[in-house]
Amino acid sequence: MLGCHYGRIFQVTVAGGSYQEGLMAHLQGVPPGLLLDEAAIYAELLQRKPGQGELSSPRREPDIPVIYSGVNAADTMSGFHNAGHTNGTPLTLLIPNLDRHFEHIEAYRVTNRTPRPGHASFATYQKYGSWDDSIGAGIFSGRYTATLVAAGAVAKKWLFEKYGTTFHGCMTQIGDITIPFEGWDHVPTNPFFAPVADVSALEAYMGELRKAGDSCGARLRVTARNVPVGLGEPLFDKMDADIAWAMMGINAVKGVEIGAGFASVTQRGSTHGDSLSPQGFKGNNAGGVLGGISTGQDLEVSIAIKPTSSILSPRESIDIEGHSTEVVTKGRHDPCVGIRATPIAEAMLALVVMEHALRHRAQCADVNLPVSPIKASFL
Amino acid sequence: MLGCHYGRIFQVTVAGGSYQEGLMAHLQGVPPGLLLDEAAIYAELLQRKPGQGELSSPRREPDIPVIYSGVNAADTMSGFHNAGHTNGTPLTLLIPNLDRHFEHIEAYRVTNRTPRPGHASFATYQKYGSWDDSIGAGIFSGRYTATLVAAGAVAKKWLFEKYGTTFHGCMTQIGDITIPFEGWDHVPTNPFFAPVADVSALEAYMGELRKAGDSCGARLRVTARNVPVGLGEPLFDKMDADIAWAMMGINAVKGVEIGAGFASVTQRGSTHGDSLSPQGFKGNNAGGVLGGISTGQDLEVSIAIKPTSSILSPRESIDIEGHSTEVVTKGRHDPCVGIRATPIAEAMLALVVMEHALRHRAQCADVNLPVSPIKASFL
Amino acid sequence: MLGCHYGRIFQVTVAGGSYQEGLMAHLQGVPPGLLLDEAAIYAELLQRKPGQGELSSPRREPDIPVIYSGVNAADTMSGFHNAGHTNGTPLTLLIPNLDRHFEHIEAYRVTNRTPRPGHASFATYQKYGSWDDSIGAGIFSGRYTATLVAAGAVAKKWLFEKYGTTFHGCMTQIGDITIPFEGWDHVPTNPFFAPVADVSALEAYMGELRKAGDSCGARLRVTARNVPVGLGEPLFDKMDADIAWAMMGINAVKGVEIGAGFASVTQRGSTHGDSLSPQGFKGNNAGGVLGGISTGQDLEVSIAIKPTSSILSPRESIDIEGHSTEVVTKGRHDPCVGIRATPIAEAMLALVVMEHALRHRAQCADVNLPVSPIKASFL
Amino acid sequence: MLGCHYGRIFQVTVAGGSYQEGLMAHLQGVPPGLLLDEAAIYAELLQRKPGQGELSSPRREPDIPVIYSGVNAADTMSGFHNAGHTNGTPLTLLIPNLDRHFEHIEAYRVTNRTPRPGHASFATYQKYGSWDDSIGAGIFSGRYTATLVAAGAVAKKWLFEKYGTTFHGCMTQIGDITIPFEGWDHVPTNPFFAPVADVSALEAYMGELRKAGDSCGARLRVTARNVPVGLGEPLFDKMDADIAWAMMGINAVKGVEIGAGFASVTQRGSTHGDSLSPQGFKGNNAGGVLGGISTGQDLEVSIAIKPTSSILSPRESIDIEGHSTEVVTKGRHDPCVGIRATPIAEAMLALVVMEHALRHRAQCADVNLPVSPIKASFL
Repeated sequence: MLGCHYGRIFQVTVAGGSYQEGLMAHLQGVPPGLLLDEAAIYAELLQRKPGQGELSSPRREPDIPVIYSGVNAADTMSGFHNAGHTNGTPLTLLIPNLDRHFEHIEAYRVTNRTPRPGHASFATYQKYGSWDDSIGAGIFSGRYTATLVAAGAVAKKWLFEKYGTTFHGCMTQIGDITIPFEGWDHVPTNPFFAPVADVSALEAYMGELRKAGDSCGARLRVTARNVPVGLGEPLFDKMDADIAWAMMGINAVKGVEIGAGFASVTQRGSTHGDSLSPQGFKGNNAGGVLGGISTGQDLEVSIAIKPTSSILSPRESIDIEGHSTEVVTKGRHDPCVGIRATPIAEAMLALVVMEHALRHRAQCADVNLPVSPIKASFL
Repeated sequence: MLGCHYGRIFQVTVAGGSYQEGLMAHLQGVPPGLLLDEAAIYAELLQRKPGQGELSSPRREPDIPVIYSGVNAADTMSGFHNAGHTNGTPLTLLIPNLDRHFEHIEAYRVTNRTPRPGHASFATYQKYGSWDDSIGAGIFSGRYTATLVAAGAVAKKWLFEKYGTTFHGCMTQIGDITIPFEGWDHVPTNPFFAPVADVSALEAYMGELRKAGDSCGARLRVTARNVPVGLGEPLFDKMDADIAWAMMGINAVKGVEIGAGFASVTQRGSTHGDSLSPQGFKGNNAGGVLGGISTGQDLEVSIAIKPTSSILSPRESIDIEGHSTEVVTKGRHDPCVGIRATPIAEAMLALVVMEHALRHRAQCADVNLPVSPIKASFL
Repeated sequence: MLGCHYGRIFQVTVAGGSYQEGLMAHLQGVPPGLLLDEAAIYAELLQRKPGQGELSSPRREPDIPVIYSGVNAADTMSGFHNAGHTNGTPLTLLIPNLDRHFEHIEAYRVTNRTPRPGHASFATYQKYGSWDDSIGAGIFSGRYTATLVAAGAVAKKWLFEKYGTTFHGCMTQIGDITIPFEGWDHVPTNPFFAPVADVSALEAYMGELRKAGDSCGARLRVTARNVPVGLGEPLFDKMDADIAWAMMGINAVKGVEIGAGFASVTQRGSTHGDSLSPQGFKGNNAGGVLGGISTGQDLEVSIAIKPTSSILSPRESIDIEGHSTEVVTKGRHDPCVGIRATPIAEAMLALVVMEHALRHRAQCADVNLPVSPIKASFL
Repeated sequence: MLGCHYGRIFQVTVAGGSYQEGLMAHLQGVPPGLLLDEAAIYAELLQRKPGQGELSSPRREPDIPVIYSGVNAADTMSGFHNAGHTNGTPLTLLIPNLDRHFEHIEAYRVTNRTPRPGHASFATYQKYGSWDDSIGAGIFSGRYTATLVAAGAVAKKWLFEKYGTTFHGCMTQIGDITIPFEGWDHVPTNPFFAPVADVSALEAYMGELRKAGDSCGARLRVTARNVPVGLGEPLFDKMDADIAWAMMGINAVKGVEIGAGFASVTQRGSTHGDSLSPQGFKGNNAGGVLGGISTGQDLEVSIAIKPTSSILSPRESIDIEGHSTEVVTKGRHDPCVGIRATPIAEAMLALVVMEHALRHRAQCADVNLPVSPIKASFL
């Protein structure tokens, strides 16, 4: 692996896996002076934590983050205004693995040599040869996404304090069930991240699925408010291109939409383009990005997550000599990986916005922003 | 702009715009020994060229590429086997602008100060202030995509000669009309890149749209065959994440799908996962990528392109003082930008595959690939 | 080649060679609003131009730069304040080759297969195999350094306008002759970039060398004044590490010193450390950098340039079958490549300072600079 | 800090400081299949460890490295050939701080607000404002160099197993004393890394220095043998440019030479160029690099290290209000930082060679290397 790195300025580098000592996120370019403690990061990590109900994996990891470097030591500096603040050096966040069951590695190892349909083990075996044992049992696990959430927590905090930017995500569909939007307030009240008061239908649906030894996909929505105008690039590293990269890079994501997304195929230009009035944009088909640059509209992103590949139902596969065989997955798995993905998608969106916020002032800090009746860049 | 760059090894850097002297693509990491001439690149550029019919922009640019550096001079080296081959140094491709009409800049300049709904001019004005005149009239133009096609031509040629990899693209929907797949052979026979024998319905649809002063979106499919197994990364720079970045970075793209894409939301795990037999995969919901790594299945990508924002119909907007006004776009524009996008999407896909082909051998050249009944990596 | 790229923000990418169509520099991250024309770049290029006397190569290239993209078109925008200013898009500078003599390629080609002692042709043949014909005859030529000088001209202009930063360079030794420093004013008055009024001794020395069919080395000094305090990084991409990279990357450089350089080996700590008074630093052994970060002192750099490897004297070598042979270099060469290197070293220093100026504000724009009796950062 | 990163393929990212929880090195691009355990890394770390005698800092850190991720778990995989081997995922190495004395931070904090001449605290205060307390007391400490040595250990092991490449370093001068080269065997027998049997003169010299409350500089030599021919780049990221960056980036380094270095200023071309015979090169003024590409000669590098800035002798400085004052350094410091630098310089050289070894095969794996009587590239 040689691409575990995002960003030119706010750079996130990750490592670790389910069956390694733990997980790690390394952040460069964090502006100095941000008040940061483990509790703030832990609060975000709690949201994606598995084992909170019957819906996800039985593995129970406390996911307690350790700020290993990058923050002024609070205990010794008390009395000084900089205690507990970032100091400009790289921020290293560790999330040790505490609930490793090595017997599971063995199960994975066997499984990985009989590829599960839909699982990465076939591809990784072709790439790393026989050296990949712990990969299939580790790096592809949803567990590493804790590093993304931890890194995103830092970006979210800085963006909120600097620009008032906030991030929100929810599930909008699970399998065949479309979930109506009743309000953001409902999201933290249920394990689905569903924006509805009553999730009994969803629970029933999941119960059936579990009974059938099967899994299903999901659709999520993520949004960012109060994003400064003017962030992004006109080509290549466009705000929306980077968002697409960030989202498609989340395990199991198979589709990404910005704004109207695939619905824009059947829209007319006279409908799709968001008209402007002195009060602002009159719609958001753009999803907050035009020409790769943020418009000040909310960023609106939608993603499709495929069904979990590790299911109890037997599937047709081949063994290591290439003969036909059957594979049945054992081990600990979420029946719908989409359930845990909302905080991850929020975090990835935050990383992209953060990177572009810092990039923008690198090149354009001297631009005298034009007067505009619509709110100008906050920079 | 500080992100006009793709790749760690096969690196593509672009520049230029509609109203600059011309366009440029700079490629690093091109393996030495690739036979390359302007004709090969021109053949690809011809495909995306506007002005070939009534369907696209009236600007007529010959799009003749110049190999400015990176290839051994053919005229003086004749008799030597390396004439006309890449020599390992950066390949610079120039595509001069020959049909600039400066009166159009003036038209754009005025327009850009009265933002067209759906167009980047609003965002770019907020980013670059009043320095952006030529940006709205240039870099966001579909014209710069010639650089992508030119760069992609190099990647396509190398990948074909090394692995037999081929790239194919077509239009699958335009506005409300779904286009059936009758065969790749039809694609080059019509200006829509439609895989059908008879495009009269599409022409009629476009005619109505043009008459109405409106525009529509499109959906395209791009695929790559004979992609070696094992290319990509398990995290962050996944093959599919890089593809999403590449596709969403094409002008006007609002959605990207890999394999089953958004349809995977309603699929069950028992259906979605492509089962394996001694003869290979029995489906391609994966779209050729599992866990960020190529599987040897065809890469299958689908993208949504929004309707052209520059339309003749008057739209509600604001003037530079922020008062309500109307905007009517003049200038030269495609009624459906999706029509020209197929070769661009193919090129972007080729750039991603090329980058990962070279990355793979950097880290994993020593891996002894396991025996496999399914075709192993070609590397 | 896959490392023709410097910078994260102010990014310079180059291409081209002596016997290609021409040379190219591509700059990303140039802040919008910088007034820039070809004349400003040409003025810098004139300084490094060969063929100005008998001391350097007889090839006569006008080195006329073309701003191919990145600047608002002046001719059509007249009357608007942004005409002739950078617009934030990538700046492409072309320097076409106009004095190629293809018979020289042939001479080079033969020579490159009989390695000249001290020349890159042996190494490049091992790297690129037989595809390298034009490399030895091109990319290693001093000619490509025109791209560095052109790029540096942009950095110099921006830094001067923003911070008053200036760059100066001179020759301090040529072969056995140490050149005293009589004043910067003398530097442009002689082809040696020597800071002395009378260069007759240098001319005599060069005459003898030429007569002997031999070459010699040189030592240069480069300095930057009014560099803001606080630029650089504490680790890895230190200001001095980047300067060392930039200088050692210039053709024929074999040594780099910052401040006291190798003299610091015999200094005591009580002498080496520059003490501070309310009026500022009382010395400059640091050379303007401490801990990788600029101090506000002048940046002081010294480099060693080896003697030209292409000399008329016969040298012992091997032929392509590995048998002993003699090599005598024909073609056009400078007897002391150090003579032309001063403007190149200045340009490289400017690129490094520019990159770090933009980096600094990306991460640290919010830092409230402390009160200090010594001039604080200008940012 | 946003440049704590080296490499495109073999990428090293570091973090941590003296008074943080510990230090961290993150390596991407490590080829799978390398047998690696903590003992191998510890063996290298032992070499640079302070506190081994009276010559260096009294802080006593065991420097025990933890392989946190990237290696197949040995304890559970026993019986399988891949146990204890790298698996292709990022390798995270932790070196926890175990001997932090927080009272020292306080001492540093005070000191950092009264800049020590020659120390980074002045510059860092200007860069990070008042947020830098732990920086001056941490990241600039020689302690972080443990991460470099740990990372270098991985590169050294892979290069030795693949190509037989070995790395050697020694001290060649300390203050006024030039150290003759009696043999590499002596280097590990004394704390100076001096290639001599008898170091009593060096010890006496250091004793006097310590008594005087002063410090001195040093000159080191580092070399690499059996480096494949053809590694490096012709421009910008030249092998020698990257080496210069790597060396100048080591704390306190003020000068770097490759091969003949500054001596090449007074050499003639007829002397400097290493002539070739059927048996190989007849000298090594090149220092193993021509045109930025390795020649197969030994890489030969020499560096100058300045005297430690933290000395007991009182120095003239200014206080935080800018008034004249005196500063006397307390805390734990090496009297000659050059003593500990040899293994660091070796490690940095190994990182550069490793990166270019992987780069080379990315672009040039298909080159059919020419027949050569001198050993060809090992790739």
